[in-house]
Amino acid sequence: MVKVEFVFEDGKLLEAYANSGDSLLEVAGEHNVAMDAPCSGNASCGKCRVRLLRGELDSRKTIHISEEEYRAGWRLACTSRLCGDVSLLIPDISFSYINSMKTADLNSPEEILIFDNARRNLQMSGLEPKNGMDIIALDLAEPSLEDTMPDNERLIRGLRGYFNINRVRLPYNVLRKLPEVLRKNRFKVKCVVWTTSENMYVYDIYGIHEKVVIGGLAVDVGTTTVSALLFDMETGEILAKMSAGNAQIRYGADVINRIIRQQEPNGITKLQDAIIGETLCPMIEEMCLEAGISKEQIYRICIAGNTTMNHLLLGVHAEAIRTEPYIPAFFRTETLLASDIGIPINKNARLIMAPNIGSYVGGDITAGTLVSMLWNRPEFSLFVDLGTNGEIVFGNNEFMMSCACSAGPAFEGGDISCGMRACDGAIEACRIDRNTMAPDYSVIGEPGTRPVGLCGSGIIDVISELFMAGIIDQRGKFVREGARIRRDSYGIGSYVLAFEEEAGSVKDVEITEVDIDNFIRAKGAIYSAICTMLSSLGFETDMIEDVYVAGGIGRGINIRNAINIGMLPDLPLKRFHYVGNTSLTGAYLMLLSSPAEQKTYELAENMTYVELSVVPDYMDEFVGACFMPHTDAGRFPSVKRR
Amino acid sequence: MVKVEFVFEDGKLLEAYANSGDSLLEVAGEHNVAMDAPCSGNASCGKCRVRLLRGELDSRKTIHISEEEYRAGWRLACTSRLCGDVSLLIPDISFSYINSMKTADLNSPEEILIFDNARRNLQMSGLEPKNGMDIIALDLAEPSLEDTMPDNERLIRGLRGYFNINRVRLPYNVLRKLPEVLRKNRFKVKCVVWTTSENMYVYDIYGIHEKVVIGGLAVDVGTTTVSALLFDMETGEILAKMSAGNAQIRYGADVINRIIRQQEPNGITKLQDAIIGETLCPMIEEMCLEAGISKEQIYRICIAGNTTMNHLLLGVHAEAIRTEPYIPAFFRTETLLASDIGIPINKNARLIMAPNIGSYVGGDITAGTLVSMLWNRPEFSLFVDLGTNGEIVFGNNEFMMSCACSAGPAFEGGDISCGMRACDGAIEACRIDRNTMAPDYSVIGEPGTRPVGLCGSGIIDVISELFMAGIIDQRGKFVREGARIRRDSYGIGSYVLAFEEEAGSVKDVEITEVDIDNFIRAKGAIYSAICTMLSSLGFETDMIEDVYVAGGIGRGINIRNAINIGMLPDLPLKRFHYVGNTSLTGAYLMLLSSPAEQKTYELAENMTYVELSVVPDYMDEFVGACFMPHTDAGRFPSVKRR
Repeated sequence: MVKVEFVFEDGKLLEAYANSGDSLLEVAGEHNVAMDAPCSGNASCGKCRVRLLRGELDSRKTIHISEEEYRAGWRLACTSRLCGDVSLLIPDISFSYINSMKTADLNSPEEILIFDNARRNLQMSGLEPKNGMDIIALDLAEPSLEDTMPDNERLIRGLRGYFNINRVRLPYNVLRKLPEVLRKNRFKVKCVVWTTSENMYVYDIYGIHEKVVIGGLAVDVGTTTVSALLFDMETGEILAKMSAGNAQIRYGADVINRIIRQQEPNGITKLQDAIIGETLCPMIEEMCLEAGISKEQIYRICIAGNTTMNHLLLGVHAEAIRTEPYIPAFFRTETLLASDIGIPINKNARLIMAPNIGSYVGGDITAGTLVSMLWNRPEFSLFVDLGTNGEIVFGNNEFMMSCACSAGPAFEGGDISCGMRACDGAIEACRIDRNTMAPDYSVIGEPGTRPVGLCGSGIIDVISELFMAGIIDQRGKFVREGARIRRDSYGIGSYVLAFEEEAGSVKDVEITEVDIDNFIRAKGAIYSAICTMLSSLGFETDMIEDVYVAGGIGRGINIRNAINIGMLPDLPLKRFHYVGNTSLTGAYLMLLSSPAEQKTYELAENMTYVELSVVPDYMDEFVGACFMPHTDAGRFPSVKRR
Repeated sequence: MVKVEFVFEDGKLLEAYANSGDSLLEVAGEHNVAMDAPCSGNASCGKCRVRLLRGELDSRKTIHISEEEYRAGWRLACTSRLCGDVSLLIPDISFSYINSMKTADLNSPEEILIFDNARRNLQMSGLEPKNGMDIIALDLAEPSLEDTMPDNERLIRGLRGYFNINRVRLPYNVLRKLPEVLRKNRFKVKCVVWTTSENMYVYDIYGIHEKVVIGGLAVDVGTTTVSALLFDMETGEILAKMSAGNAQIRYGADVINRIIRQQEPNGITKLQDAIIGETLCPMIEEMCLEAGISKEQIYRICIAGNTTMNHLLLGVHAEAIRTEPYIPAFFRTETLLASDIGIPINKNARLIMAPNIGSYVGGDITAGTLVSMLWNRPEFSLFVDLGTNGEIVFGNNEFMMSCACSAGPAFEGGDISCGMRACDGAIEACRIDRNTMAPDYSVIGEPGTRPVGLCGSGIIDVISELFMAGIIDQRGKFVREGARIRRDSYGIGSYVLAFEEEAGSVKDVEITEVDIDNFIRAKGAIYSAICTMLSSLGFETDMIEDVYVAGGIGRGINIRNAINIGMLPDLPLKRFHYVGNTSLTGAYLMLLSSPAEQKTYELAENMTYVELSVVPDYMDEFVGACFMPHTDAGRFPSVKRR
């Protein structure tokens, strides 16, 4: 037995005992020391860094730890085995994905704008924000020896007085509390009901004076990041909003690895536990606390996620998605309940899933397409969702076409050594002085928050600025030298945004050539997908009237910089619109408005899916796009000028 | 700490530790030593007898233990407190209610007759034995790159080919196993479905070669006894049948005491656990074993019980049933699932409840009325259900009227010192020699089974025979002396059916004046209820064309003897029909035939309920009926003659 002391940056301690020879990453996992290891312990991502404070580890050297860092005690947990008592510093960045929940400031201009816009667009398109959920107050006649109708019939008779309905359904939970609630409140009660054209479903019954909110929960289940919002289904008012890392990250950074892990013994349960028990449950808990409502007052949930995430969430075998002929178990689901999969909200709450349209274009995109309003205009528009998979929809009110490309988690900070989600401490925007090469960045959080890492929008800015300042070349290699440029023992260059002493973490915040390389492949995948799809239709990029850029990569994206590095086509800036996390907004609209929900199913049925891998030109396009801005510089005249 | 050793008749031992001063009945309960105490420990029923083998108990004397018995070590557990280490014999009879499950011999003539008759009557009345449940075999096209329809749509398309249906619903459990079952069986599967006029609900999916049975479970939840049968919903074939004591007995023998106990902290849960966890779960387990099917293959359950039992089963507050104006939470339920209340069968199995029509006429009676076929004949008939509550229905195809009387558990052996359910060891029929006063009885079980106690039909026989032999008088007092007649120290007489050495238990099987007195009140309640209801309509008893006698009181009832003691009206014997446990048979018919289910709801809506307690003559009638056969002997001319 050896003793392992985990020391966190905030000074907290955790002691654990393990056997000599055990893998440090596994020991950490067993003791719930969250540690980000998107590569599943293959030593390929370099995220699971720890620093020796006392004692030794039996560690293999790796490209992710320089000689200098090694001497300073830095190790990767995945390549380290225990060989004696040890004390280890666990840097915040190493678990920023899985451990941190970010509560949004609902009063920020960005937040207000996104949901105001979405609601306004919905109404302008003629889709009413009606969802059939209501609170009905009843003052029932008390029973007597002359009026001995049983409680359930009495309630139903009362409800029928309000609506011209055929059938009223009282589920078990309402029947169970009925006699007590009626008598405690002298037959003055209010009911939470859902009314369809003919029928009424009674979700709950309360005393007339109790505070009742009809909570709706919209969730974007991303491969890397999960975002959710809790709102009032009667008014549409947002009550709480939050994002957190998808705890499935430990089973692999991309959908393919997760499907493979799902096939292992208990894999279905493990993957489902990670997203529900470890990710959604604490988020729901926290949001209810913030909104001041109970979990039972969440009466409906809508999930928007990609096809694989949807399968993993439901605990349905996803193996057939991965292997030819790539068949999902479902595109669209119906009549699921949140309680079917153990989501701890009202027991009868319906679980609505934004529909998938293919193995690699899922509900996140159909929900996003709803929000983009592409389907409501004669002009051709492009909708680009930057997630772990990049998805693209092109079309207008007559046709729509979609495709997907594997961008990897770089846009959410996933493949980047100092990458992190857009939460406190993330550098979200940056300029670099062309001469001094000094950075000027803004950090998410209270004023004075020190940088811990980089989120997606920050990475785009830093790479664009490094490129425009001539610090890196078209391939992303460092070509200038200076105080902030370093080379490790392998000769790999890096740029330091914040030295350890300025940073909010125990190590420098920097970006390396490996990071830049990963990012170039991600942006190349997006750009080449856009071009391939358009050219397959015989379209040029300049025929795109509007480009809607979505994704939870930060509070905004500097489009100019995204064009500079060749991620988005070189069009006039005014054609671009950053629309935020449309998967989440779409899930919100589907709950707020039943016509919008129906419209989403309709969009999904009418959207054509293009499988890029079978388009002959795609690989050539991709190779060309793995340059900044592109091997064919003529495609980016504005960048060339600058 | 003191040590308590429980010794069972079969020689098994259980050791427990408790504190000096603890109640023996409570200690037994805490250690799952089942002990029957219908009076809830008030020392009024005398059922919780134990015998000291070693050590002492601090026991109050009681009328239930004679001086002689006291010297022999007999004590009541409820009046005993621990005062040192002790070893106790627990007689079988003391837990014959709660502990024993009786599996019926499905090949016995009585069993075959009951269900054959019920099915034949149903068909003759024009109600088809159709329930919409089916097994559909499908040979689906395997997906390919040209045919990429997702699994759920593929299955639904296949099912639509069989029926002209509007909508197919796949619940979560089917979706969850869908991709695996399809691929393991090369898309050759069979589905268990329920089809209504327009819609189809898919309960389950199996490989084409798996054995599948559509199990239906009919349950009679009686206050004292629970009976159940498992059958094949496609063919109607009975697969297993069983009865057991309702474990709620420990919370009181009658519905009123149980309602009171339900109001205590955790009362709802305790009462629900007793009927579901302790009674139904082991029965279901055992029946599935016998039938060779899994619990998941039970796709529907129908419960017939009285109004209070139905509330306690669902865990719904029943307090308002007990207090003016006596309002149940429901008469009829809809769309409940067995899983709502934790009944461990298929997760989506519907739970159907035979409808109640009043606080004291419940689903057991509406189900029984269905079976009686009263509603299908122009002649006036009487339906009498002998349970803990006696319920009576009178009418024909034009009107029906019902009432209830509190008979107590005597018909099921409950208020009788040697009473027991109709299971192995129960004396079920008896003759007594007029001269020698020697009994000649038959015992339920394998030939040679020795008597342990008396079930309802046996009690009727013994009392009638004692009366007709002049051993007891019209008030039930012993008026002859002999070897089998005993008097205890209080002068209370008893008749010994089997002395300890002949009996299958550790004590004599006997019937006492207290027992007879209890039984006379039970039979008086039934007879006076019949007369009161008929006279309120201006009917005489001889206008009754047919009398259907139901109840789980044994394998049959000697009608002649029941008339002799004044329990049933003095009509020609050929007008009487013993129809067995109609509550159970009715639940069976409701599952077998959807039209029969609908008919039961219709019967319940059209049946009038008479509250006997508000009829002025009822108390006089009851007092007159508490004689054998009656204070007005002219009402029983045939008995007078004999």
